[in-house]
Amino acid sequence: MTTSTQTTAVVAPPTTDVELETLLTAAHAAATPLAGLRPTDRAKLLDAVADALDEAADQLVPVAERETRLSEARLRNELKRTTFQLRLFGEELRDGGYLDARIDHADAEWPMGAPRPDLRRLRAPLGPVVVFAASNFPFAFSVAGGDTASALAAGCPVLLKAHSGHPGLSRLTAEVVTSALRAAGAPDGTFALIAGTAAGADALRDRRVKAGAFTGSIPGGRALFDIASSRPEPIPFYGELGSNNPAFVTEAAASERRTEIAEGFVSSFTLGAGQFCTKPGTLFVPAGSGMVEALRDAALPQAAPLLNGRIQSGYEDVLQDLLSNRRLEVLAQGPGPLADPPGPTLLLTTAADMLAEPHALQTECFGPTAVVVTYDDESQLPELAETFEGQLTASIQGTDTCQVAALVEVLARKAGRVVWNQWPTGVSVTHAQQHGGPYPATTAVGSTSVGTAAIERFLRPVAYQGFPQHLLPEALHEDNPLRVPRLVDGRREA
Amino acid sequence: MTTSTQTTAVVAPPTTDVELETLLTAAHAAATPLAGLRPTDRAKLLDAVADALDEAADQLVPVAERETRLSEARLRNELKRTTFQLRLFGEELRDGGYLDARIDHADAEWPMGAPRPDLRRLRAPLGPVVVFAASNFPFAFSVAGGDTASALAAGCPVLLKAHSGHPGLSRLTAEVVTSALRAAGAPDGTFALIAGTAAGADALRDRRVKAGAFTGSIPGGRALFDIASSRPEPIPFYGELGSNNPAFVTEAAASERRTEIAEGFVSSFTLGAGQFCTKPGTLFVPAGSGMVEALRDAALPQAAPLLNGRIQSGYEDVLQDLLSNRRLEVLAQGPGPLADPPGPTLLLTTAADMLAEPHALQTECFGPTAVVVTYDDESQLPELAETFEGQLTASIQGTDTCQVAALVEVLARKAGRVVWNQWPTGVSVTHAQQHGGPYPATTAVGSTSVGTAAIERFLRPVAYQGFPQHLLPEALHEDNPLRVPRLVDGRREA
Repeated sequence: MTTSTQTTAVVAPPTTDVELETLLTAAHAAATPLAGLRPTDRAKLLDAVADALDEAADQLVPVAERETRLSEARLRNELKRTTFQLRLFGEELRDGGYLDARIDHADAEWPMGAPRPDLRRLRAPLGPVVVFAASNFPFAFSVAGGDTASALAAGCPVLLKAHSGHPGLSRLTAEVVTSALRAAGAPDGTFALIAGTAAGADALRDRRVKAGAFTGSIPGGRALFDIASSRPEPIPFYGELGSNNPAFVTEAAASERRTEIAEGFVSSFTLGAGQFCTKPGTLFVPAGSGMVEALRDAALPQAAPLLNGRIQSGYEDVLQDLLSNRRLEVLAQGPGPLADPPGPTLLLTTAADMLAEPHALQTECFGPTAVVVTYDDESQLPELAETFEGQLTASIQGTDTCQVAALVEVLARKAGRVVWNQWPTGVSVTHAQQHGGPYPATTAVGSTSVGTAAIERFLRPVAYQGFPQHLLPEALHEDNPLRVPRLVDGRREA
Repeated sequence: MTTSTQTTAVVAPPTTDVELETLLTAAHAAATPLAGLRPTDRAKLLDAVADALDEAADQLVPVAERETRLSEARLRNELKRTTFQLRLFGEELRDGGYLDARIDHADAEWPMGAPRPDLRRLRAPLGPVVVFAASNFPFAFSVAGGDTASALAAGCPVLLKAHSGHPGLSRLTAEVVTSALRAAGAPDGTFALIAGTAAGADALRDRRVKAGAFTGSIPGGRALFDIASSRPEPIPFYGELGSNNPAFVTEAAASERRTEIAEGFVSSFTLGAGQFCTKPGTLFVPAGSGMVEALRDAALPQAAPLLNGRIQSGYEDVLQDLLSNRRLEVLAQGPGPLADPPGPTLLLTTAADMLAEPHALQTECFGPTAVVVTYDDESQLPELAETFEGQLTASIQGTDTCQVAALVEVLARKAGRVVWNQWPTGVSVTHAQQHGGPYPATTAVGSTSVGTAAIERFLRPVAYQGFPQHLLPEALHEDNPLRVPRLVDGRREA
């Protein structure tokens, strides 16, 4: 349908069964030596990868531009984010807090009815991980993205299933990563690229693989989650699937700054041509407040190309469904809403219609379309918020005097990140970031795929009881030679 | 088959669909107010439950004796452990470390290519949890056991599926728990008892339920895990299923203290009539060291009754299978190994046989049976350890001069807790405890069901971006009014 978007010349040949077996064997063999490295030595591996990617920017970015139709500026910034992320995990390793090290000394008086033995616990790597790359962030959620960085930081070898949307970039990035790891002394098998849907699924089924990570669509992610969960030995699968990211404008906020809100919203839902997992897909505004008019009048950005032909045609299908829904009317539209590239579309409905048919009106539309919903009274907002499934984000535009505690309570239950007077697009890589929420936002509700806590996904606790010092991991030695933060007899060590 | 063990007079009527719906509605309604309590106020609820259970000991213990055939001393001790555990979670709530509170202040210079917004993150409760009680610890892993204590501590209402092995005790304990919670001001619906396999499965399927926890058999736990994972919205399921708990005796240890080791092992595998999930089921000993003879000569304890007729007949079946395996011979046996109550059985095989047929020889046998395996050379131990699936525990009897680093590495990969010169039975409730390991030890490899970290299973992170102080949870207020430990801009707050 959209052959003009088929700009990809490189086609990655699928990994064969024989190749996959070799790579799995190598990843399995790498697991123990990689886990055995001191955290500070694994930090050096991450730094080496970050440095090599920065150095290769002038080779990587043009390939990325060709394969994804994203702008050079955006791609250079994304690469910067990617290497920053690798280095931040290095800092996390040097800090050591991620180990959650705990020591309970033997205590004959422990009041539970039996003496307490000497118990020392830390988090250890799970083993080889299969990471499924995403299309929309060809650096930050792809070959050397957050899942890879956090799995390697945890000490887990990575088999990276390349996204078919940027095969040439995937191969080139993997070469940079692999040679940087090799030069820095990482065990062979620490990282490898695989290609093809079947190879990805087969890797996830393999008994040597101990976890999966994924960013992409709900059907694709659910299929992989089902594979991971139905193995003879089920393994954790960290899928980040879909999110509508609703935003709510209070009456006071609409009255104080409707133009600013309208412009901010348009800018957020069209950012990256609406191809962000945190794109705000629904905006609730007070009826009769002038917000609808402000949104109608806000300047829509020019049409921007979608990532590839498959996404373009998927977008057209979903938008056509929305346009044919009798509960939705067009509020504003750029030229060529169904063309390639597509002009943005803003649809309009009412709270009553949203309550009547929430599922259809909340369909995630990957591209520059969003739905505006008018409500009559702010007291309806918690009920409207309840109609949503699990979300990555939920946002409120309010003022300090708004009575929104009940709305915040619902949104904090529905979403992993609640945003106040800002827009959800742009996911900062920090210590306190949370990118993940109840299903279908993520398949593992307690996890995040962005931020330093992402490392926790690839770790499992191990306790050592009654062990002599020389057989303990260094982080659990009595004198704390690695200077990691620890909980000792229930108190944080000074 | 074993009607003599049917000492249970009380039969709990299964929860009907109508009753279940009422209880689910109440649990759902309780979730928000329970989550909204300050951690220190939830601690008071746990203390109230603990106090009430201690006060009711003289009513509870006789019912437990009647229904489980466990001794009064054991049951009184287990109840003490149970109430200690509730209070320890109260301390955890007062400490606040479980919140993993993090604050990143806005930072315009954040070097990732975009300014960092103000982000504040903590862990919030998941929502209603279904807990499936175990039979072998009628207090500590049942109605008011570790799963219930940690879920309530997290702020999650609990629907407790009673174990059919002690229905009268379950009902009585639930009455004590429910009335203590009510008197202490807990929201209605914070805790309820349900009965019947179908009601348990239906509750796990219900969309208002957000997690499950279970201790029991591999087939039963796997069936429930599959229900939880195949829901439209999959939910975490924390099943603690099966474990063989292998123990390894080095040559030096066998030479130094074979009698002590033999007696310790016999005492551990027969403790509680072998009905502990941490019972050591396999002991590797050096051939020709005198260990086999020491084990043969160690005094076996008297036959003790198993928990109920179903467990007795299951034990007989598994033991008969083992006795008919040509790779196993009887090393020592008490009188009436297949009688009710059964005398203990110690079987013998070789490392070569174990390598040839590991799965059959490692079958978990719930009762007083264990397998002794002779090996020729200590260098074989890592390879033998590799034959095991995921374990709750693995133990080594060694000396300070033993070269066992490779064995420790394998065991720390296979098991959640590695034990040195002690036996695995007896799971202390502490901060550093880890009771959980790779499948089939647990269905969620990163979790523990014993120790303060068990609370993490029922929490999910939520981040607040750009929020005004008055709309933030108290733990994230700038001035830290609850005095919880926090990570602020990547540093632990003083």
